[in-house]
Amino acid sequence: MLEEALYHMPETEYGYAVDSKTVHLRLRTARADTPRVYVIYGGKYDFWEKRRRKEMAFRCHDRLYNYYDVVLKPEDVRLVYIFEIREGEKRFYYSEDGLTPCYDFTTAFYNAFQIAYLNPCDVHRPVAWMNSACFYQIFVDRFYRGDNRKNDSYINLEWGQLPTPESFAGGDLAGIRMKLPYLEELGVNALYLTPIFKSVSNHKYDIQDYYTVDESFGTNGDFAELVNEAHRCGIRVVIDAVFNHVSERCAQFQDVLKSGRESRYFDWFIIHGDAVDRKSVNYECFSACDYMPKWNTSNPEVQDFLIDIAVHWIKEYHIDGWRLDVSDEVSHAFWRRFRHAVKAADTECVIIGENWHNAVSFLRGDQYDAVMNYAFTKACLDFFAFETLDAEGFANSLNGLLMRNTDTVNNMMLNLLDSHDTHRFFTQVGENVAKLKSALAVLYLFVGAPCVYYGTEIALPGGYDPDCRRTMDWDRAQERGEIWRHINRLAKLKREESALHSPRAKIYSEKNIFYLERGDIRLTIDGDSFSHVIERMG
Amino acid sequence: MLEEALYHMPETEYGYAVDSKTVHLRLRTARADTPRVYVIYGGKYDFWEKRRRKEMAFRCHDRLYNYYDVVLKPEDVRLVYIFEIREGEKRFYYSEDGLTPCYDFTTAFYNAFQIAYLNPCDVHRPVAWMNSACFYQIFVDRFYRGDNRKNDSYINLEWGQLPTPESFAGGDLAGIRMKLPYLEELGVNALYLTPIFKSVSNHKYDIQDYYTVDESFGTNGDFAELVNEAHRCGIRVVIDAVFNHVSERCAQFQDVLKSGRESRYFDWFIIHGDAVDRKSVNYECFSACDYMPKWNTSNPEVQDFLIDIAVHWIKEYHIDGWRLDVSDEVSHAFWRRFRHAVKAADTECVIIGENWHNAVSFLRGDQYDAVMNYAFTKACLDFFAFETLDAEGFANSLNGLLMRNTDTVNNMMLNLLDSHDTHRFFTQVGENVAKLKSALAVLYLFVGAPCVYYGTEIALPGGYDPDCRRTMDWDRAQERGEIWRHINRLAKLKREESALHSPRAKIYSEKNIFYLERGDIRLTIDGDSFSHVIERMG
Repeated sequence: MLEEALYHMPETEYGYAVDSKTVHLRLRTARADTPRVYVIYGGKYDFWEKRRRKEMAFRCHDRLYNYYDVVLKPEDVRLVYIFEIREGEKRFYYSEDGLTPCYDFTTAFYNAFQIAYLNPCDVHRPVAWMNSACFYQIFVDRFYRGDNRKNDSYINLEWGQLPTPESFAGGDLAGIRMKLPYLEELGVNALYLTPIFKSVSNHKYDIQDYYTVDESFGTNGDFAELVNEAHRCGIRVVIDAVFNHVSERCAQFQDVLKSGRESRYFDWFIIHGDAVDRKSVNYECFSACDYMPKWNTSNPEVQDFLIDIAVHWIKEYHIDGWRLDVSDEVSHAFWRRFRHAVKAADTECVIIGENWHNAVSFLRGDQYDAVMNYAFTKACLDFFAFETLDAEGFANSLNGLLMRNTDTVNNMMLNLLDSHDTHRFFTQVGENVAKLKSALAVLYLFVGAPCVYYGTEIALPGGYDPDCRRTMDWDRAQERGEIWRHINRLAKLKREESALHSPRAKIYSEKNIFYLERGDIRLTIDGDSFSHVIERMG
Repeated sequence: MLEEALYHMPETEYGYAVDSKTVHLRLRTARADTPRVYVIYGGKYDFWEKRRRKEMAFRCHDRLYNYYDVVLKPEDVRLVYIFEIREGEKRFYYSEDGLTPCYDFTTAFYNAFQIAYLNPCDVHRPVAWMNSACFYQIFVDRFYRGDNRKNDSYINLEWGQLPTPESFAGGDLAGIRMKLPYLEELGVNALYLTPIFKSVSNHKYDIQDYYTVDESFGTNGDFAELVNEAHRCGIRVVIDAVFNHVSERCAQFQDVLKSGRESRYFDWFIIHGDAVDRKSVNYECFSACDYMPKWNTSNPEVQDFLIDIAVHWIKEYHIDGWRLDVSDEVSHAFWRRFRHAVKAADTECVIIGENWHNAVSFLRGDQYDAVMNYAFTKACLDFFAFETLDAEGFANSLNGLLMRNTDTVNNMMLNLLDSHDTHRFFTQVGENVAKLKSALAVLYLFVGAPCVYYGTEIALPGGYDPDCRRTMDWDRAQERGEIWRHINRLAKLKREESALHSPRAKIYSEKNIFYLERGDIRLTIDGDSFSHVIERMG
């Protein structure tokens, strides 16, 4: 028994409330150790005399560890527990004091594990519709132009030509609305739109006015129509909250430019000095972009301002979720207030952070619901594109990712192969159709919500920004080609199969064959040819 | 290199902001592994081309692991990093993808560690006075009676007789005030008082009215005088917040008893049914105490009610801190709001939870400052009383405890050997004076704030409650005996030596001798005789 590998911690992904009566516990051992594991549990005030025992099941393994888990519905919601670990005839006990050959229950109040009380307000409640969500991400300027009467003097890219960072192609909200039947037919039931608010750029991540749809995309009324029409088609709408930074053109920053420390908005930004110096860029901004000053989200006034925006679009336009741009650089204190306000407005409004790294400090139920799962993207790239992982390594990576977070979070993860911020996956795999199709199968069958980037269904290629933001090719879309039909079938499976709505998956490998099982559905991928099969198990 | 033992996680005790410009990182390896460890760090947006490197220092070890740490003051507060681990000629890199023989910095945006932005509002700010605090815990009814004119018909225990659970001895706030010169002389500069609000019990953990001092203890005016006088003596006052539960006699529960679901306070409690049934106890309460119904701290109205109380005693009476009773059973959501309000009223007001177990989920800077360190108590008992740990085991335990939390938290921990909820330590060690003195030396020299339970200075014995709540013996206190003088010397050291105000300690053992070093001060304890020496190192 490699004690150094043992791990459990209450009130983390290793021990959490699923609801106010149900607790999920995990225990980790070394990969080489396969003991029988039991949880011995009871109430906080009578554990010394009254205990129950339940065997934990092997859940999965990754490269280094085995994971066991168990679901408890304790009689007493003041839960105290330790683990009993059996290796043949040997028994060990695992508590806060580590692994010991015996355990004294009369001093358990000092060193047992505990989840002291299941308070309902601390439970991370799932957003039910995320279980069967099939997302489609749209970069609005490049998807479809629906309004032919608008002032189009801003358009400088002919549809179909390759974009530059300054290109405007003319896509708009009316265009998306007109393509809702197309999306519905493809199997999409949720949209993630890149920003739609007033902004001078094509990507609109430099927002000038959070209350107004950019006029090149349409009006606020167009957006209301889009959401209503989407809802009629059974399609949810998640939009982009750019709350880390703002456009230099916003009223608040302009006032600070003019009045320096005298401005009532001076502390809304993070300025090193008494006035903004554009030359030395003496203020915090997004990356090195001096035209995107960073909001000071430690300031309660800024928090109030941004939260009002978040609630406004939920209450007035009935959006179904917020995707949070550069959310890892925004304060936890802000996201806690944000979550509180958003969920008070609509418990079913999903909150998805843009954190590329392990985001567990944001995913404890008090901030986001989930994140854009770029760690999943990286595992897929390592297997399909870079080929630095074989089938075994890929299975280990995916299992490791599931063990990073609670099942509640995993089931709401926005899984993706690519986005407007990466190369297109099809390009990364050298335009290998078998690889793309197999990766899409993993995307739709993995735990969480699949999100395909517009154009994936027509195998649109593209390198890094701006090349990954090409205009949609509607002629090819009409062909309903091989990838299109593949996504269509996968989306139907994801929407209809209840096994794909649970957080459980069996992921493993044998002889460079990768397996992913959900209920009686099995995906098999050959690690040499990258061809795949999806079948019902007998 | 035992990879299974390697551990690091950003935004936990392994990686946290000390202030808005300074980051503290820890890395854990197996005990048998003693590599050289470096952190390679840079900014989030140019890490691929611009990096710095700093060697990490060995910090300590416990039974299973070695810990390395380093303090960074990064130029860019959007910190990205990985670890380089060198064993002889071999180099490894440790990132979110685990241990690898090489590392590709061009894809670091997927798998490096990061602390994405140091937002000031997320930093756990230390309470400065806790650095040199020497606490003294008073169980008010048993300390000293100062008011001889009060209605004393409630007193049923003659001072000096052994208490029962129902005893009232007559101690009061005036008595504490009269003994402030005594406490000041002993070296005390902070008091922790068990509850003082209106309640029918001797312990007053069943509070009836949170705005009124219990009349047997005095008046609100007496409390104001006590705090003012204590402050004049340089003594801080921390009082007990019993926010998990309340007395059945409180107005709200009485209203629910009368009106059931019709009461506007029905949802202030957790009642299974439409009315309270006292026989079946169909409502949540503290432990099995049906006269202490549990507050529903998931209810925002209850949160508001309790927070108003917390702020009232800070603003109107200038208390210096709240000790939180049964705080582990109260919702995180409540403690977050509580902290926000308390720190807004007074940033120097300390928040100390009563969590007997690993409390890291409450100690991330958004809830408490620290807890009553019962895990420290248990380690001291294991070494001095139960003798289940030798000097090496004790050193390992103490180092392990320090690695459970951030240095910020460790420096505010309320360390204790005993309390009103345990046997007295002197009794646990079989009234062995050498053991008590050595344990006190550890208490005062360990990282955090020492807290002695009243009567320790006269080696008052006592078993579990009610025996640990005997009346103070003022005749013996006048003798200024051996333990009294020992505590007096230790308190002077703790107050005056800056090395004891830092979170750094070197704790180790050799041949069953225990060593604890802070700056040039060294405590040595013989693990056989339990005698100790405190000396300056040359």
